[in-house]
Amino acid sequence: MSLAEYPSRLLESAVNEFASLPGIGRKTAFRLVMNLLRRDAEEVRKFGETIIRLHNEIRYCTICNNISDTEICTICSDEKRDHSQVCVVENIQDVIAIENTRQYKGVYHVLGGIISPVDGIGPSDLKIDSLEEKIRKGGIREIIFALSTTIEGDTTNFYLYKRLSKYDVLFTALARGVAVGDELEYTDEITLGRAINNRNPYHQ
Amino acid sequence: MSLAEYPSRLLESAVNEFASLPGIGRKTAFRLVMNLLRRDAEEVRKFGETIIRLHNEIRYCTICNNISDTEICTICSDEKRDHSQVCVVENIQDVIAIENTRQYKGVYHVLGGIISPVDGIGPSDLKIDSLEEKIRKGGIREIIFALSTTIEGDTTNFYLYKRLSKYDVLFTALARGVAVGDELEYTDEITLGRAINNRNPYHQ
Repeated sequence: MSLAEYPSRLLESAVNEFASLPGIGRKTAFRLVMNLLRRDAEEVRKFGETIIRLHNEIRYCTICNNISDTEICTICSDEKRDHSQVCVVENIQDVIAIENTRQYKGVYHVLGGIISPVDGIGPSDLKIDSLEEKIRKGGIREIIFALSTTIEGDTTNFYLYKRLSKYDVLFTALARGVAVGDELEYTDEITLGRAINNRNPYHQ
Repeated sequence: MSLAEYPSRLLESAVNEFASLPGIGRKTAFRLVMNLLRRDAEEVRKFGETIIRLHNEIRYCTICNNISDTEICTICSDEKRDHSQVCVVENIQDVIAIENTRQYKGVYHVLGGIISPVDGIGPSDLKIDSLEEKIRKGGIREIIFALSTTIEGDTTNFYLYKRLSKYDVLFTALARGVAVGDELEYTDEITLGRAINNRNPYHQ
């Protein structure tokens, strides 16, 4: 569907906006816009306003950098959680993923990315100073590295450990091994190798 | 990703808005919202405003019901086009599809749907009165039925022809046959049967 063929500039702008989103092509964008056009004016106004408010009103927790409606997020302000245990993650998606396991009762520190020289992201682009400051102030017992199991994730873990290991804190990392439901035959050899070396006592 | 786990009500509303669009699940919606959050405030404001304007400002051509920024659309106001040839289509998507072929120089009439008793859409829900009025006024030489080749499309063609054939106008329908690039082996028998019956003189 070429640009020149839209019967309306406004329709065209709306399609362009949706098509600028990741994974949305022009045909899908057009379908989404047509769906909005079929809705009530009030509903569409709410859609547009939510997007505008999203950017104007959203805040980041001053303690952990997680997305928040308030100065301190619901996790950091929860007194039932263990504030001496800090899980270091790359982004907000990872906080949500770990929260969904309902297995973790500590707090988080969102780095806002991982060290990736290819993308021009160095340690100074990440929230590492505030993590060190947090540890320096004391009261933290354990730092859990929960970054991606990629070269960039490993590099970031290594950098963080080098820089922070002088503090009297326990450093741990997520267990690595064969994913639940995976067949051994199709598990890559690095994962399988680590899984054998880090094998655990068997219990039911 | 369950609802309760979002760290912000506003984030949750934004995800809900995107997830209400057809073909967009909650995970995709979340990814789209995170993409918007990474953009400049100005860009996101424009996105939201375009959506709001879309509904407030978009108009439908008073002649053909096509989407338009003005009272009469660019096609109906184009004097180079043949206004005595009217192509009857179901919706705006179909206008765009035919325009993209660059083969048609007449004008359109958008019905706004097709007769579909299952969905409770009867002739009175479609722009049929205005089509008849247009023909009654005179100046129209040919009506081209360009509806879907479905039972609903055929029913609508049949209804339109029954109602309008009393006027002195040529009624035609899109050619049906084997699609360009299709293999005969995989063409359904009804299409193939029609293609044999409506065979054309061969020329290169």
